[in-house]
Amino acid sequence: MRVAESDLRRLATGLLEERGAPPKVAWLQADLLIEAELRGLPSHGLQRLPRLLARIDRGLANPFATGTHRWRGHALLQVDGQRALGPVAVMSALEALLPAIENSGLALAAIRDANHIGMLAYYAEQAARRGLIGILLSTSEALVHPFGGTEAMLGTNPIAIGIPTGETPFVLDLATSLVSMGKIHNYALRGESLLQGWAVDVDGNPTTDAEAAKSGAIAPFGDAKGYGLGLAFELLVAALAGSDLAPEIHGTLDTTHPANKGDVLILIDPGADERTITRLAAYLDALRCSRPVDINRPIAVPGDGMRTRRSATLRDGIDVPEALLNELRTLQPA
Amino acid sequence: MRVAESDLRRLATGLLEERGAPPKVAWLQADLLIEAELRGLPSHGLQRLPRLLARIDRGLANPFATGTHRWRGHALLQVDGQRALGPVAVMSALEALLPAIENSGLALAAIRDANHIGMLAYYAEQAARRGLIGILLSTSEALVHPFGGTEAMLGTNPIAIGIPTGETPFVLDLATSLVSMGKIHNYALRGESLLQGWAVDVDGNPTTDAEAAKSGAIAPFGDAKGYGLGLAFELLVAALAGSDLAPEIHGTLDTTHPANKGDVLILIDPGADERTITRLAAYLDALRCSRPVDINRPIAVPGDGMRTRRSATLRDGIDVPEALLNELRTLQPA
Repeated sequence: MRVAESDLRRLATGLLEERGAPPKVAWLQADLLIEAELRGLPSHGLQRLPRLLARIDRGLANPFATGTHRWRGHALLQVDGQRALGPVAVMSALEALLPAIENSGLALAAIRDANHIGMLAYYAEQAARRGLIGILLSTSEALVHPFGGTEAMLGTNPIAIGIPTGETPFVLDLATSLVSMGKIHNYALRGESLLQGWAVDVDGNPTTDAEAAKSGAIAPFGDAKGYGLGLAFELLVAALAGSDLAPEIHGTLDTTHPANKGDVLILIDPGADERTITRLAAYLDALRCSRPVDINRPIAVPGDGMRTRRSATLRDGIDVPEALLNELRTLQPA
Repeated sequence: MRVAESDLRRLATGLLEERGAPPKVAWLQADLLIEAELRGLPSHGLQRLPRLLARIDRGLANPFATGTHRWRGHALLQVDGQRALGPVAVMSALEALLPAIENSGLALAAIRDANHIGMLAYYAEQAARRGLIGILLSTSEALVHPFGGTEAMLGTNPIAIGIPTGETPFVLDLATSLVSMGKIHNYALRGESLLQGWAVDVDGNPTTDAEAAKSGAIAPFGDAKGYGLGLAFELLVAALAGSDLAPEIHGTLDTTHPANKGDVLILIDPGADERTITRLAAYLDALRCSRPVDINRPIAVPGDGMRTRRSATLRDGIDVPEALLNELRTLQPA
């Protein structure tokens, strides 16, 4: 059912505050989830909240922690997340990097032991809106098989890149898996068949059965190249954050272990003048106007669809499954 | 025909020195080309040399230039390549970044107006062998169509990532195009058909005719995701280096215009202890030993194949087409 964004925001913020989250922390965590809903990414939206609340209840997520900061060089920040909520750890690191960028031109934060940081586009866009290039990397539990392989050995290892390009920044956000495990679960729920090549079952056999794929592995996107990138991100994050590698990582759906994946945030001052920004924006427009395969489907620039969906959802309300809404309401104290 | 690596190295170095390149510069440029040959990447090897020599003769490549350096922040180096040979500009920037990394933990160089920097793995591996994470990005002339598009609007925009992982570093090097234009040319030369989906002709129609594809456009790798990454790299390099965007860029085969693409080099000190390095190496071994689709084709880690080919070619000699060898020999002064 469709619910106004402001009502859901109040509900989510309230649930977090009732568990002791300071108002600013509750606002930020709720904002991340609501923004995912607005952009049409419910897998990173409110359905995450019940598990997050359970993690707070069990001491696996600490709504008071922001992470402890140790500078390894003037522009390289090592963050021990100390079970902080993901967006709190990232935004706190982002704020800490800003003075370093003033001096160094770029800066990096490597974060371990923070909770799920959610939709990476959120942070990439914030960086771009401040006139900075933002690059986000994150690792996850083993869900993806290597190219030519049949065992889940890699995380879905997403990357987001935000670049200031005038009024509306360029924001790319993608997982290095062909599809998300959320999508597999969704197909299983609806009893639909997967496409060929998406996944293998637990024995490593190709399957179109979504239920069987849930305990198997998802293919990397883009064959050998996508596998190579996913693997590079896996190593890069673990090397910098000191976090665990996919086979040892507890997933975002886990409610019994501290989070042990890693996150990396790189901010770069493009120092781009007005002329460069104008050139980039003009190039993106030329791209949008270039000849499509199907005249009814013009070329999209990453972020375009997200912005369109956001405007529509702000107007029409967020479509929340009734079961989820009821679950959230029962989580409120009597 | 097979020629000993040392003979080809002497030939290439000699040709560059005869055009006035200082010995160190000639050695470096020749080393880059020879290393590409050794790794089984002839498209980035000696076949590049005749055009490079022509560019020197015409003043488009200056064998004395190293690029002028301007620091924009303690860790952000802006390089005006001043028509330097590509590897000279990159290695000179790399050396300049090293003291900045000592202080800042990471550093970035954005390079414009340098000649073709060739195989990116060369630099990524050098970084990793120094214990640093190395990330290289480069742009090119428009050869790739956007996802859902039919016009060449993007460069092949390669990325290389080198990560210290013990004795043999992890080195990934890939273009964001599905195949290289070199491969298309090679198919055309041999009169072979392309695979479906690789390319479109100049009118935007899908084609398997390699000759027709040469004036058309290549697909991005990995559909929308690969397109998104290639586009992000395009914008990122142009924003940082102030270089041109694909539709305005003169290609590496051009012998009449100064190079106007851009290159970005990021170096990060992973600060990884022995335990982390051991963990990464063990993970890569576990990956190699994980269950393959085909028992005769074990899982490869990026860089594995390159190393195997290098050892074999060092032993057996480099296979150079006779026509290329003759061309290079005629380029020697009488």
